[in-house]
Amino acid sequence: MAKLVYFFGGGKAEGDAKMKELLGGKGANLAEMTNIGLPVPAGFTITTEVCTHYYDNNLQYPADLKAQIEEALAKTEAVMGAKFGDTENPLLVSCRSGARVSMPGMMDTVLNIGLNEATLQGLIKKTGNERFAWDSYRRFVQMFGDVVLGLKPQTKQEIDPFEHIMDELKHERKVENDSDLTVADLKELVVRFKKAVKDRTGKDFPEDAREQLYGAIGSVFDSWNNDRAVVYRRQYGYPASWGTAANICSMVFGNMGDDCATGVAFTRDPATGEKEFYGEYLINAQGEDVVAGIRTPKKIAELKKEMPEVYAQLDQIRGILEKHYRDVQDIEFTVQQGKLWMLQTRNGKRTGFAAVHFAVDMVDEGLITQNEAISVGRIPPDDLNQLLQPIFDPESKRKIIAEGKLLAKGINAGPGAATGVIKFFADDAESYVAGFKADAHGNRSPESRVILVRRETSPEDIRGMQAADGILTAFGGASSHAALVSRQMGKVCVVGCSALQIDYTARTVTVGSTVLKEGDFISIDGFTGEVMAGQAATRPSEVVSVLIDKTMKPSESTTYQKFARMMEWADSVRKLKIRTNADKPEQAEAAVAFGAEGIGLCRTEHMFFDHIVPMREMILAGSVADRKKALEKLLPFQRGDFEGLFRAMKGKPVTIRTLDPPLHEFLPHDAKGQAEMAAQMGVSVEVIEERVKALHEFNPMLGFRGCRLGIVYPEITEMQARAILEAAVNVKKEGIDVEPEIMIPLVGFLPELKSQAKLVHETAKKVFEEAGVTVPYQVGTMIELPRACIAAGDIAKEAQFFSFGTNDLTQTGLGMSRDDYGSFIRSYIEGDIVPKDPFQVIDFDGIGGLMKIGVERGRAQRTDIKIGICGEHGGEPDSVKFCHRIGLNYVSCSPFRVPIARLAAAQAALENK
Amino acid sequence: MAKLVYFFGGGKAEGDAKMKELLGGKGANLAEMTNIGLPVPAGFTITTEVCTHYYDNNLQYPADLKAQIEEALAKTEAVMGAKFGDTENPLLVSCRSGARVSMPGMMDTVLNIGLNEATLQGLIKKTGNERFAWDSYRRFVQMFGDVVLGLKPQTKQEIDPFEHIMDELKHERKVENDSDLTVADLKELVVRFKKAVKDRTGKDFPEDAREQLYGAIGSVFDSWNNDRAVVYRRQYGYPASWGTAANICSMVFGNMGDDCATGVAFTRDPATGEKEFYGEYLINAQGEDVVAGIRTPKKIAELKKEMPEVYAQLDQIRGILEKHYRDVQDIEFTVQQGKLWMLQTRNGKRTGFAAVHFAVDMVDEGLITQNEAISVGRIPPDDLNQLLQPIFDPESKRKIIAEGKLLAKGINAGPGAATGVIKFFADDAESYVAGFKADAHGNRSPESRVILVRRETSPEDIRGMQAADGILTAFGGASSHAALVSRQMGKVCVVGCSALQIDYTARTVTVGSTVLKEGDFISIDGFTGEVMAGQAATRPSEVVSVLIDKTMKPSESTTYQKFARMMEWADSVRKLKIRTNADKPEQAEAAVAFGAEGIGLCRTEHMFFDHIVPMREMILAGSVADRKKALEKLLPFQRGDFEGLFRAMKGKPVTIRTLDPPLHEFLPHDAKGQAEMAAQMGVSVEVIEERVKALHEFNPMLGFRGCRLGIVYPEITEMQARAILEAAVNVKKEGIDVEPEIMIPLVGFLPELKSQAKLVHETAKKVFEEAGVTVPYQVGTMIELPRACIAAGDIAKEAQFFSFGTNDLTQTGLGMSRDDYGSFIRSYIEGDIVPKDPFQVIDFDGIGGLMKIGVERGRAQRTDIKIGICGEHGGEPDSVKFCHRIGLNYVSCSPFRVPIARLAAAQAALENK
Repeated sequence: MAKLVYFFGGGKAEGDAKMKELLGGKGANLAEMTNIGLPVPAGFTITTEVCTHYYDNNLQYPADLKAQIEEALAKTEAVMGAKFGDTENPLLVSCRSGARVSMPGMMDTVLNIGLNEATLQGLIKKTGNERFAWDSYRRFVQMFGDVVLGLKPQTKQEIDPFEHIMDELKHERKVENDSDLTVADLKELVVRFKKAVKDRTGKDFPEDAREQLYGAIGSVFDSWNNDRAVVYRRQYGYPASWGTAANICSMVFGNMGDDCATGVAFTRDPATGEKEFYGEYLINAQGEDVVAGIRTPKKIAELKKEMPEVYAQLDQIRGILEKHYRDVQDIEFTVQQGKLWMLQTRNGKRTGFAAVHFAVDMVDEGLITQNEAISVGRIPPDDLNQLLQPIFDPESKRKIIAEGKLLAKGINAGPGAATGVIKFFADDAESYVAGFKADAHGNRSPESRVILVRRETSPEDIRGMQAADGILTAFGGASSHAALVSRQMGKVCVVGCSALQIDYTARTVTVGSTVLKEGDFISIDGFTGEVMAGQAATRPSEVVSVLIDKTMKPSESTTYQKFARMMEWADSVRKLKIRTNADKPEQAEAAVAFGAEGIGLCRTEHMFFDHIVPMREMILAGSVADRKKALEKLLPFQRGDFEGLFRAMKGKPVTIRTLDPPLHEFLPHDAKGQAEMAAQMGVSVEVIEERVKALHEFNPMLGFRGCRLGIVYPEITEMQARAILEAAVNVKKEGIDVEPEIMIPLVGFLPELKSQAKLVHETAKKVFEEAGVTVPYQVGTMIELPRACIAAGDIAKEAQFFSFGTNDLTQTGLGMSRDDYGSFIRSYIEGDIVPKDPFQVIDFDGIGGLMKIGVERGRAQRTDIKIGICGEHGGEPDSVKFCHRIGLNYVSCSPFRVPIARLAAAQAALENK
Repeated sequence: MAKLVYFFGGGKAEGDAKMKELLGGKGANLAEMTNIGLPVPAGFTITTEVCTHYYDNNLQYPADLKAQIEEALAKTEAVMGAKFGDTENPLLVSCRSGARVSMPGMMDTVLNIGLNEATLQGLIKKTGNERFAWDSYRRFVQMFGDVVLGLKPQTKQEIDPFEHIMDELKHERKVENDSDLTVADLKELVVRFKKAVKDRTGKDFPEDAREQLYGAIGSVFDSWNNDRAVVYRRQYGYPASWGTAANICSMVFGNMGDDCATGVAFTRDPATGEKEFYGEYLINAQGEDVVAGIRTPKKIAELKKEMPEVYAQLDQIRGILEKHYRDVQDIEFTVQQGKLWMLQTRNGKRTGFAAVHFAVDMVDEGLITQNEAISVGRIPPDDLNQLLQPIFDPESKRKIIAEGKLLAKGINAGPGAATGVIKFFADDAESYVAGFKADAHGNRSPESRVILVRRETSPEDIRGMQAADGILTAFGGASSHAALVSRQMGKVCVVGCSALQIDYTARTVTVGSTVLKEGDFISIDGFTGEVMAGQAATRPSEVVSVLIDKTMKPSESTTYQKFARMMEWADSVRKLKIRTNADKPEQAEAAVAFGAEGIGLCRTEHMFFDHIVPMREMILAGSVADRKKALEKLLPFQRGDFEGLFRAMKGKPVTIRTLDPPLHEFLPHDAKGQAEMAAQMGVSVEVIEERVKALHEFNPMLGFRGCRLGIVYPEITEMQARAILEAAVNVKKEGIDVEPEIMIPLVGFLPELKSQAKLVHETAKKVFEEAGVTVPYQVGTMIELPRACIAAGDIAKEAQFFSFGTNDLTQTGLGMSRDDYGSFIRSYIEGDIVPKDPFQVIDFDGIGGLMKIGVERGRAQRTDIKIGICGEHGGEPDSVKFCHRIGLNYVSCSPFRVPIARLAAAQAALENK
């Protein structure tokens, strides 16, 4: 006979904290607290297995459940010295949900179970407090009616039926507050509540305590599959198969008088991380009152004055809990007639700031080891974002939202907070920003900041994006061009905000009835995806101030110091190297400051965009000779750019990808742009139109790009190889080490790579002869096509390194365009078709399977081949861990994600020891 | 010491016919003929290994070569009773290239080697024919100067330098023909030729016989890498590493007088396949004269009268050779002073018609077995096309080309011959053709036939393509929409004919200076890709007349009878089942007549296009209810279509794919079409424009299509499942067996298939209950995404069958859009980056590697899973063989490729026994 019910009480529990999967977090911790001698009201937990049995068997309970509940209930009665349903000395219980992870507010709870007309009299007698008893009773009828009997509003307009009755009675009695109602009024309320139940359900309100109890248990299990819970699980990727436990706890009351209280607290400050008891409480109140916000709770420190003994006990328990759990706890307590009861403890949710402080402080306190400090449970790598990005001042943001200026929510694609004036076109943004100057301290005025608001962005918008503080798009997902470039630039970015209606002609963006014009202020929160009208104040990150802006000294920021120590611990255990995706010296320098050990991907596209005229001459060229002439003009610019990168990286490896995007991206697609280009180049518009038309592709993602360019136009590869190697030679002559790695994109066939590598080697030979200096260099390839994974053994014959381009590998492997998948991905995630957005987290089984094949076959051919990843996934913690597991040598990510990758890599090493 | 030189002569040879790889085809067969006692002038073969050594070692010969040549030369001299370079009794030799496969005319040959001022005198003495000797000498100087010394025209405009001298002399002598020149003139010619050599090369013409010989050998090896040879090898996929042999043969002369002759012949008619000695000869001529066409050769039958003994000997040799080689031979012979010499034999190239006749006849003659008859060497499967498609009457085509009307050459995408009037728009084609009626015998007038000429085609053009006799496009490759649909429809099709400049506005197509207008006649040859202005006469295929048109009885066509017997032999050995891709009953019936054993792919797209109004209503629908209403209108049409298919297939399995293309394909993209649609649907044009805009995709290939449609709009899948299963039930009630297989496209994740399969099963349950009849059915999936191959084990949990969609698998696996790859694929094929066009022949190592993984993982999960292929590759012989090797159960191809697939499958079974 399976054990379905776990009792706790009287200093002993059948469960413990390790049994979270079976008992849920709440149940496991109630048991644990009981075991370590804390004052927990007795009760029992019905396991999550009962919940899964219930769903697997047509909503039927296991046969044995009732007997086990009765047994546990009897033990509870014995410990609490009261009897469930007894008219003299009634035991009241609550029934609370509790899954293995906290899902705050998603599922149901019923309090005061066991109250009826008869036990009510016992409660009055026992407590001597008629008003309390009747108030408890009316609350119970209301809660049970809502949760168990389903008396909820039927439409959004309708108000809660019980609230409605309450309002009517207050109106009749001409009183304002609930507390102004007399005992007689409360009795009348109960009568009316019960009548409403009868009217709506056709049945009498249940008087039988056991009927109430089983009804409540059923509701808790049912609530595992309510809409909110389902959505919440989906958001966090929790499977429905986990189920919830149901916790039956003896009721204790914080609302029986002024020697009663109820409160919630954190053992340390979960926002700042400071080591300070943090929480709030209310005298003479029920737990829900603290959260409801009708009365303003007091800070926990005041309890010391109001109930010094209780406070002392609580403070002691705070210490016990932190020592016992070795982590900051989020607790609930109730004081009933001077006696403290612990109702819940769990690891406290925390900001990224607090997480770092907690972890480092607890190492210093000897509570945890360094390896524990950097575990994912302590610091989810993504939370480090908060230490790097500017954030909105919470007060300012709250105010702006309170004013109804929260417009919409998009996909949070580039973390941080940005406020600025709206610009719709990249060149407008660029010229607008150029019209302002920073003051002597480098500060810029709010008016000088731009949010670039577009339907979507394209490579033509790069300079405007660089000029803007934030980018907001109506289309595209977390891997759209806007998102990708923003993250690399460290720009705040919200994408796919489909509520925006952008009118480029009128230069307005409309959301519902709100119309914002060009020049209006807008604020976007890249952490949450929120888009707000108006200006919200931001504040800079201390870590960035120290490492990048150098406006703070390390000694001035304890956050920085703790961050730095934590990163050192991470570095000491991780196996993966961390590189960065950077095209410019300043990006490279920032990345190195964040700990990057090389450049994993330098895209050379921007170099062509920066010198668009010769680039366009090349595209228009009718002969190899003309093309070479145009390329010769580009050579010195690219060489200069590469020199800057090599200098910034000081001998660290620099992987440079040859030209990748299709040529049509470098041509203007609108009539105005084409006319301008024609004038500039001295050709007719028809010539431009014709070329644009000729370069048009049905599926540009699968078209004439990557190494295909260098195969049809070998002179492009030659020019780029020359620029890279001449730069390397020049920088080496300055006495700085260089380690260039030339990377050929979109290779699927060995001969593709061979042909390009041959060009590079021939060029290298010439350059080294001309310069009289030789530098070591490597030629490798992106692995970003399924064929490349399959043929990796073949390709490794030539490739000195592999770098997985998981963006394109995901697009091709799944047959899913990241620019187009918005039309169905929502249905996919909601329908549990895909566990996560595959452009955010590597699709381990599919794309990951291809990667594994690529690694195995590549290494079988060339044992020591260096393998990395430079797709956007390289900065996503779960993906970084996957890369560790399949044995990559490094991951490369945008500069601001380097610390995140470092931490994730360390966690991967620890988790796979 | 490696053997580098193989002697043959005097009835004994060191090599034999099996040594083609080492000796080349010519050398091996000269040896073989010598061995079987045929009169072959003595000589020797320098092996292909010498050629590869030469290229691998910086154009140096193996050290030992010279000694071996001298040894073989001595043996040759002994047998021929003459001495190389001797002034009294000189032996002359030829030096001829000869690779393991015939590469006619691609490489070099030098005749009459060993002639100089001194040996010339010996030749005169020996033959007593001064004119012959001097003519041979001037020919030698000319040929050696051209081939070995490189005196070729330097530009396209320049005429051959030797021809130029010859013309000058004839002009001076005021004669017309070469034969009018006197011996003195010939002597003068030699003087002038040698002067030209000296002027151009700065060196004297070599007088030394051995210098001549080694120079000629070098030229032959060099010619392995001349442009023509390289292009030819690329076209046929022969690797450069094979190399050529060089054959040094004693010269025999057909031009020493009227007792001399030279000729070429086939042992049977290579065009018709008839068992008749076929060839031509010239009295008193050299071999090149027969080919050059200056004198008109005589039919071989006349030799019987002119040289009865020689003819009898030749006819006897014909029989010996066929028995010995067990195949039809292509021979060259020379008669010198009444003695017959055999200069070459090889298997004769033949038309598809002849191939079938030869093979079947030789089985009947007991020369070969049935399995040999159907081997790829006897009948390349693609050659069967010629038996199925209408062809141009050769005379008519020759005439039209002679008139200079050959406009251009595109990619031969749909075999056959078509002539018709040009239409540029699909609806024009449709309405134009509808204006004509076939006569009582079903014949249609030439004016009623249309060639649809377009830049490219789209699904909107389907009806126009159906109406047209042929389709010609300027863009796209062999797997473009036009090509794909044409082959399925059995339409003649030429695509990617980039020389065409199509002006839709002016309604003209221009090639160079030729401008054709709408309504002008044009002819396209789908076998060769040739595009001709004007009308070329066509003739129908006998096999089609018997099987499809039923205008001939089997007894009236020996070609049909032999074809049918050959196909029976193929069916008796093949393991692969052959299905067809067909959407309509008439396609299905044709395919069954061709031997199809089921439908492997019924695309349902055309059913939506055929009823475009409700389809568009569905796309515009704002709610599920509206969408369902529109779908209900489509249901009866689809059901009717499926009923037709089930009836045609009479219990054979019918695989039906649910809706696959993106919805925007069903909307008009031009203003006119949108206005029409708006009027028809009673909505504003803006509504249509908006919807088209909303459905626009950057990479539609990777967008919202396939099962993604059915997941977002489950009602579409429900309607289709209902239509299929109701049709199945109805046809079953008629007493006809049905075996529907419902196929879900573009599946990558198991839950995708699960969700769609669930809809099908639920619908099936309802339909069967309603009808009171149950039919067996299966639900399976396309495997057309790399992820599907990787996750095949997972997907096989639900899938009852797999069908590889190699078109999309190639596009995604290679990251190559078949609509866009034209811009680089030529560079790829020419640069040996890819061996073959991966959209024509499966990329075995890449896409094939993914398929292998898919098969292995699918079968590991579900041992008996049925796996097929329904991509275009399913009808391509090499791909069919690959499918056999990786263990597929069936291939599915367009109806007209079914016989080809049957034969290829048989060959695969035999080749992998």
